[in-house]
Amino acid sequence: MKDDTILMAHGAGGKKSAELIRQVFLSRFSNPALSRLGDSAVLDSIQGRFAFTTDSFVVEPLFFPGGDIGKLAVCGTVNDLAAAAARPIALSAAFVLEEGLSFSILEQVVDSMHAVADEVGVPIVAGDTKVVPQGSADKMFITVSGVGEIPASVEPPAPDRVRPGDLVLLSGTVGDHGMAVMAQREGLRFSTNIVSDCAPLWSLVGAVLEVATDIHCMRDPTRGGLAAALNEIASLSQVNIEIEESAIPINEGVRVACDLLGIDPLHVANEGKMLVIVPESESQAVLSAMKKHPLGSMSSVIGRVNDAPEGSVYLRTRLGTLRILDTPSGDILPRIC
Amino acid sequence: MKDDTILMAHGAGGKKSAELIRQVFLSRFSNPALSRLGDSAVLDSIQGRFAFTTDSFVVEPLFFPGGDIGKLAVCGTVNDLAAAAARPIALSAAFVLEEGLSFSILEQVVDSMHAVADEVGVPIVAGDTKVVPQGSADKMFITVSGVGEIPASVEPPAPDRVRPGDLVLLSGTVGDHGMAVMAQREGLRFSTNIVSDCAPLWSLVGAVLEVATDIHCMRDPTRGGLAAALNEIASLSQVNIEIEESAIPINEGVRVACDLLGIDPLHVANEGKMLVIVPESESQAVLSAMKKHPLGSMSSVIGRVNDAPEGSVYLRTRLGTLRILDTPSGDILPRIC
Repeated sequence: MKDDTILMAHGAGGKKSAELIRQVFLSRFSNPALSRLGDSAVLDSIQGRFAFTTDSFVVEPLFFPGGDIGKLAVCGTVNDLAAAAARPIALSAAFVLEEGLSFSILEQVVDSMHAVADEVGVPIVAGDTKVVPQGSADKMFITVSGVGEIPASVEPPAPDRVRPGDLVLLSGTVGDHGMAVMAQREGLRFSTNIVSDCAPLWSLVGAVLEVATDIHCMRDPTRGGLAAALNEIASLSQVNIEIEESAIPINEGVRVACDLLGIDPLHVANEGKMLVIVPESESQAVLSAMKKHPLGSMSSVIGRVNDAPEGSVYLRTRLGTLRILDTPSGDILPRIC
Repeated sequence: MKDDTILMAHGAGGKKSAELIRQVFLSRFSNPALSRLGDSAVLDSIQGRFAFTTDSFVVEPLFFPGGDIGKLAVCGTVNDLAAAAARPIALSAAFVLEEGLSFSILEQVVDSMHAVADEVGVPIVAGDTKVVPQGSADKMFITVSGVGEIPASVEPPAPDRVRPGDLVLLSGTVGDHGMAVMAQREGLRFSTNIVSDCAPLWSLVGAVLEVATDIHCMRDPTRGGLAAALNEIASLSQVNIEIEESAIPINEGVRVACDLLGIDPLHVANEGKMLVIVPESESQAVLSAMKKHPLGSMSSVIGRVNDAPEGSVYLRTRLGTLRILDTPSGDILPRIC
């Protein structure tokens, strides 16, 4: 075993662990809370309500067009906070590493995490590293948790606040992340122009909060795609959501790949899109704020909330017919995030 | 694949994921923040400073005398918060599951998490589940993150606040957790009386905070044992710590097992012990409070902080000689937590 690979001792809490923390993590994530190396990070008080979330990432391969597991992990957690209208104020990162992983891969991933956290302006204040023997994990899993502050003026958006008459806005194209990972993994030839949309959405949400006082719900449609996100909301609010197929933007490469593979792009994970559900009276201001943001230039109103049938999602197809849009039932794209 | 095992679809964000969440998690962890099923949990404001921490758990086997991976994960994170003098107010739990894991094992583990979180009085408000194909992970990894509130009257303890003249207190015996897991894994015959000390220490720390206003440092000596914890503190505070071998309690079974295997019990992980470092003037009150607590009945003063040599830990042996107590350098006990 060469010196530039992860050893069991790097997870044992002794000298090698301390070396790893200094060389890989402290050198990148440096901030006062992390650098004190307590069992917990200690942070200043939060005014108002706060949001708390966690996500594990097991994406395979680790690197894909548009991102890697590190960027994905930070974006995923930032976006879950953003969906609660919460400004990210601190993240933690916990790694499970497979013995034999190369240091340079870990360092690339940690560089990505640092770059995107820096872009958002959120420090990574706490962490943990475990190492398991070769064959007991596949290269690297990362769990990022986050704490965010909800502005005092904002009533936290939540799935059960959605009401009949609300409009459903989406910040851009669907299916890019899932198909980018799939294409990378399967070596699909036609897919050279499919790039993950993986991006941190806090600044987009910040722009929305500046113009709207009453966002009913936000959700980033990841695993299970737009279909799963809308069905969850419809179910929790006991409403019907009707969306227009023709209003949902989709990149040509993603459309072609989905057609060829027989996958519904509305079932495919996104990692840089936000669903925003608002009263109709707020919708124009919100749409305009979203469109002005670089990550929301293709935003559109994709549907409307009705009162019945409760808990269902309908799709008005390009042909004008209405069909039930169901939650995917199997796992069409494993290890996508 | 039978119906009572975890399938890839349970991690895909669709119907099976929703079923898993309802059946396994919501039925046990039920609380208002979790039950709203937002992308983040939304919680009330925290008065004063707060602590934030994360730990991944990869212990093998999943079940051992005195606990299991679920109890361990909740205790580990609660204890990291407690070491910052923070009352746990919310936990998150993220699972990476291997396809084919039996539901009943997952449910037993989640029951344990629920039981110990309930004992501490902390809700599990956020979670995530990923499933990877058979062979891509070993059964189950759990990452628990936590947020805790530090009482306004308390200056947060931290490794760099330790000063010459301080006394070092330990809440009980060393080595129980690591040797219990080791013995279970290796099927050691002599080890029937070794039980993990895995326990949540917030109530013990709460009792200490009631009698002391100036705790310099607390630490729960997990991976790398007492030796690693003391060396980290000595290094961060640039002090010398001298401890007395004869003052450190150790269970007979652990002592025998360590002797036979040639392992230093001071290098072995604990999961229910707290190191407390205080000015001498506070030490009697703190020791007495610790001894009155069921998890601290064997507490003792195990050493003292000196000014030099900076960053070192000495052990006064039973023979009266002084030797350097170093941080372990390899991984003597892999996958212990």
